[in-house]
Amino acid sequence: MVQSHSRLDDAFAALADPTRRGILERLGRGDCSISQLAVAFGMTLTGVKKHVGVLERAGLVSTQKVGRVRVCTLGPRRLDDETTWIATYRRQLEERLDRLGEFLAQGAQEKGPQS
Amino acid sequence: MVQSHSRLDDAFAALADPTRRGILERLGRGDCSISQLAVAFGMTLTGVKKHVGVLERAGLVSTQKVGRVRVCTLGPRRLDDETTWIATYRRQLEERLDRLGEFLAQGAQEKGPQS
Repeated sequence: MVQSHSRLDDAFAALADPTRRGILERLGRGDCSISQLAVAFGMTLTGVKKHVGVLERAGLVSTQKVGRVRVCTLGPRRLDDETTWIATYRRQLEERLDRLGEFLAQGAQEKGPQS
Repeated sequence: MVQSHSRLDDAFAALADPTRRGILERLGRGDCSISQLAVAFGMTLTGVKKHVGVLERAGLVSTQKVGRVRVCTLGPRRLDDETTWIATYRRQLEERLDRLGEFLAQGAQEKGPQS
């Protein structure tokens, strides 16, 4: 499994908040300024800046100052490590369920059909 | 995108800790008692119980009392919603990068080859 612990920590922690996931979903439809996000989420500028800061540190959002406006963009991280991590968890869980299924089927066979 | 917010919150928050991810990786290789996990991670029983409690509430680990031993198993949740969520983020990011690439290519074409 993936070893880049602090990066995984930051990304999963960033994703653990509905507002931050909402901001990512919004940015998926197009770049936004901090003030546009504040209006969209009914939050203060300070509140939005905090959330964007968490997303930025996790590499999920980049910001750029354009004139007097700070514009937020999705990326640059593609969540590759997080995808790999979750896929491994799912595979292991399924392997365990398969083994459990085989074990139960074997038990049923040894026991013979119920009359 | 997926609406089950508190469930996503719990799962991503549970995954945001390296020890908890380590416990899931360990359980992927086979069931463990709380005390086996404590030994494996060099932690107190209380410390392990706290982490297992977070994983259990997120549906990533189930525990069962077998005699005097509490046995931990992977699952029952398969992280379907989390996988969908991350896949959507990745797709949106790639679509945005594609559009950026097209935009840049168009600009280069209009400008003509550099002499």
